[in-house]
Amino acid sequence: MTYRAPISDMLLALNHGAGLKDAVGAGYYGNFDIEITAAILEEAGRFASEVLAPLNRAGDQHGARLDDGHVTTAPGWADAYRRWTAAGWNAVSGPEDFGGQGLPLAINAACTEIWSAANIAFGLCPLLTLSAIEALHTHGSDALKAIYLEKLVSGDWTGTMQLTEPQAGSDVGALRSRAERAPDGSYRIFGTKIFITYGDHDMTENIVHFVLARLPDAPAGTKGISLFLIPKFLVNADGSLGARNDIHVSGLEHKLGIHASPTCTMTLGDDGGAVGYLIGEENRGMRCMFTMMNQARLAVGLEGVGIAERAYQQALAYARERRQGRAVGVSGDSMDAIIVHPDVRRMLMQMRALTAAARSICYATAVALDVAARATDPEVHAAAVARGALLTPIAKAFSTDTGNEVASLGIQVHGGMGFIEETGAAQHYRDARITSIYEGTNGIQAIDLVTRKLGADGGAAVRALLDELSKIVARVEASNDPAFGTAGTRLRDALGSLERASNWILERLTSSPNDALAGATPYLRLFGSTLGGCKLAEEALAARDSSEGFGDPLRYVTLARFFAENVAVQAPALERTVIDGAEAINSAEAILLD
Amino acid sequence: MTYRAPISDMLLALNHGAGLKDAVGAGYYGNFDIEITAAILEEAGRFASEVLAPLNRAGDQHGARLDDGHVTTAPGWADAYRRWTAAGWNAVSGPEDFGGQGLPLAINAACTEIWSAANIAFGLCPLLTLSAIEALHTHGSDALKAIYLEKLVSGDWTGTMQLTEPQAGSDVGALRSRAERAPDGSYRIFGTKIFITYGDHDMTENIVHFVLARLPDAPAGTKGISLFLIPKFLVNADGSLGARNDIHVSGLEHKLGIHASPTCTMTLGDDGGAVGYLIGEENRGMRCMFTMMNQARLAVGLEGVGIAERAYQQALAYARERRQGRAVGVSGDSMDAIIVHPDVRRMLMQMRALTAAARSICYATAVALDVAARATDPEVHAAAVARGALLTPIAKAFSTDTGNEVASLGIQVHGGMGFIEETGAAQHYRDARITSIYEGTNGIQAIDLVTRKLGADGGAAVRALLDELSKIVARVEASNDPAFGTAGTRLRDALGSLERASNWILERLTSSPNDALAGATPYLRLFGSTLGGCKLAEEALAARDSSEGFGDPLRYVTLARFFAENVAVQAPALERTVIDGAEAINSAEAILLD
Repeated sequence: MTYRAPISDMLLALNHGAGLKDAVGAGYYGNFDIEITAAILEEAGRFASEVLAPLNRAGDQHGARLDDGHVTTAPGWADAYRRWTAAGWNAVSGPEDFGGQGLPLAINAACTEIWSAANIAFGLCPLLTLSAIEALHTHGSDALKAIYLEKLVSGDWTGTMQLTEPQAGSDVGALRSRAERAPDGSYRIFGTKIFITYGDHDMTENIVHFVLARLPDAPAGTKGISLFLIPKFLVNADGSLGARNDIHVSGLEHKLGIHASPTCTMTLGDDGGAVGYLIGEENRGMRCMFTMMNQARLAVGLEGVGIAERAYQQALAYARERRQGRAVGVSGDSMDAIIVHPDVRRMLMQMRALTAAARSICYATAVALDVAARATDPEVHAAAVARGALLTPIAKAFSTDTGNEVASLGIQVHGGMGFIEETGAAQHYRDARITSIYEGTNGIQAIDLVTRKLGADGGAAVRALLDELSKIVARVEASNDPAFGTAGTRLRDALGSLERASNWILERLTSSPNDALAGATPYLRLFGSTLGGCKLAEEALAARDSSEGFGDPLRYVTLARFFAENVAVQAPALERTVIDGAEAINSAEAILLD
Repeated sequence: MTYRAPISDMLLALNHGAGLKDAVGAGYYGNFDIEITAAILEEAGRFASEVLAPLNRAGDQHGARLDDGHVTTAPGWADAYRRWTAAGWNAVSGPEDFGGQGLPLAINAACTEIWSAANIAFGLCPLLTLSAIEALHTHGSDALKAIYLEKLVSGDWTGTMQLTEPQAGSDVGALRSRAERAPDGSYRIFGTKIFITYGDHDMTENIVHFVLARLPDAPAGTKGISLFLIPKFLVNADGSLGARNDIHVSGLEHKLGIHASPTCTMTLGDDGGAVGYLIGEENRGMRCMFTMMNQARLAVGLEGVGIAERAYQQALAYARERRQGRAVGVSGDSMDAIIVHPDVRRMLMQMRALTAAARSICYATAVALDVAARATDPEVHAAAVARGALLTPIAKAFSTDTGNEVASLGIQVHGGMGFIEETGAAQHYRDARITSIYEGTNGIQAIDLVTRKLGADGGAAVRALLDELSKIVARVEASNDPAFGTAGTRLRDALGSLERASNWILERLTSSPNDALAGATPYLRLFGSTLGGCKLAEEALAARDSSEGFGDPLRYVTLARFFAENVAVQAPALERTVIDGAEAINSAEAILLD
């Protein structure tokens, strides 16, 4: 079972759910020609189906190996990576002055979904390179950019993000790796980093590490962290590779999933110190890190969408093929495909609806980040910045929760066969599990949403979004289309719940923060369910009204309806949990610590 | 991290949530002395902690091996099994006339939770032996019982259940294994069975297979299935082992989890036919199969409880030990244990509350089955039979969904460490996944609940249960205890939703069965959430009022409150999904088959 990029669904989500078409129409994307989108996605889909998807299972079985201080990737990996970069896929949204194609982030977001669906362990490497590019491009000196940026944009070299240490996970400020100033203006870095994705590999000649460390005179906590660029091989003045730098892989983790992605323990400075170059200013590394992480958070959300889509396609194919039992009211000896059974349909619809909602949320985040980066009107810019910041934690957490739920349903549709590794459904389930954890656990995302994003502007960004969503729901209500079922009512109720829960939290953010934090996760779920439901309704309305060839619009109306009646319907309960739930959590000590 | 049986929680659930104390008081359990319960559970817990739990990870890593037609279990397995049977644990609830201790099924249910928590792959073998014992004891001839039952009760021999074939999974009636009558009154069986748990192993001298097959003149479908006892080694008249029978393991599955449990492909009749003996009557095998499966379904529910408890204990220990970040309002350099963070507490409370609710439902099912088997009053007997039948699919599906959700939260509490296999949290996640599938997928359970259990008696069993639950909620309301928070309101709403959804389905069971079936899974969830919420409230009230030493009752009140405000609160949404959701599922063809 291979993977085929769902081009029609993706275009509907991009152009309508995410608002790319309107944003292009408003001129925010300069001379970008929206008509080329379909061709790009089709080409990406072809590469993914033909080259990346077939490697997915072998990569899982073989994994990455560490021998004698060198990581060897799974068979076929290095060749696929060369073909992938040669085709220009690493450079889609890269800056044009360094060899990139300068295409919208939204286009690259759709591509990221495709790579992740085909082969999440493979796609993870360039995902982190892109974050490194963003950090270097935004904060790096011209000298560093001149040496490293073009190589990173082309993918000739890959990038890593090195934050985590044994005692510093979610609490980055606790990191201890130290940096010493060298006379030539560079630095020497010493320390140990863990959980470093593609910290070493055999796919490129060089690897550019982005490492957080602490100067001797730095303040404690997050205010004393600096970001350093540390190449695996030093680069000579003529661009050729020089000496091996003092940063080495010293261990590989044995993980639940993404076996083909080497997760490395890195040792820095065993032999005099790793040569590093400062990115941005001393002690301002957290700013650079957030630049890296925000893009990475959206990308991880897209991994969730991708793996959900993959799991859905596989389960759908199985349900259409596997014969077992008979449809209600049908007799005789032959068996029907299990897709006739209402409970199997329910699972498949749940998978498809969650996936489509998560996709729409992620793409909308990308469009907001695009507009923030491109719009010249200060008001438009500010609104887009706020929107992108607000949506990022939802895109990350809702989509990765979706990846896990959908992959689990994918196993369930397969019945006993789903538990057998050969089938492949179990690999998706194992691979998806990390996405809720890395780049900030989903709990961290919820806390970010509640404290920084909802709280930052007194709730203005949330209110602006609620106004937009309310207009969508009004259009559903005004449509009088019975195919929407009770979707209008459910979404209207959900908006009310989201508004009340937002206000409740806002009122407590400073006065009783523990109460606000206790409801962070159900609040994020409430937000994602409401937003996703409205986005699917918006897409259904667009499919009904547009002449862009989305096929029978009843398909999308039914999907929006299903989501509203099965997922967004839980909004009032989530509101109650946010508002009523804090007290029990605050008095949980009695039972948890007895 | 080992496992400690939560004796106090288990006693509260058994005696109060499940009603064992009242049932014993009413005389339904004969001369059973309820005071010995705690001692039995403590002894079982000690064995589990000392012998079974330490083998769990090695069993996962080593797995079972197939060499030359023989299965070798993981290191330590055979010795642990010998010690376990020698201590009498296989015989707890076995019939006394065949060497069993004749203790209540409810006691053995608590023990099953303990074995599953300590080592689910180990516990699965005797779990199926017990089902075999039940089938043989209920339906077998005296001659067969005389030869096989004592050996199965002691655990000297193990039992298997052989239903599944490649084309016959959920649709058992599609099986093709064939049985031929032999002149001596025995049968010769031919065919292939898949997914046979412990179909071969090296822990006992003999294995007694219970195999479904079809006679040449049998009617099609489920009405033409017969059950046969097929020993691995034939048994001579003096009880010694004779010739090797023609049933062999021909393959082992490579699975997502429970690696130490050999999942076998069995080949019967390659050498003239496997000698089999009829259990019950020809073509009445489905009846015997249901006898086996009902007990097994409850036992699988208990696996869900066990693995949830194990995952909870491990996550709790980690959260109390791992330091990261600071509590709100606390400053300074040191870090706090992550259990101070409200979002971590929320996860732990969700884990504990779901586990406790599932436990209570499973134990209540066991008590109903006990009373059904023991009560002499025909009215009490009939009510208990109906209650046991009603609760079994809920116990199976709700508890195994709980096992999966809690194991996933267990990973999440560990953060990145949870994704590393060495930590152990990932193994629970992998092991738990099969429980929602085997012994009837949870979708099959939901269909069983809606069609056979809700439908059988015009809803009488559901109404009787709703009346009981309503009385519990009235006691919560009357308690005026602020520690219950909004639990009374949430549970009252949930009861209303469950009642309306039940009526809605009942009205459609015959007139529009696809509508009823479309809502089966959300209906089961609604049922489990409401029932579990009321049971936890009942336990909290008992802990408040009893002098049995359950410690600070606020602990259990807080737990019941949390469940009501975080889980049972979703009941109205689930009601809406049941009632509104069918139409979108019935028109899903457009989108799923496009």
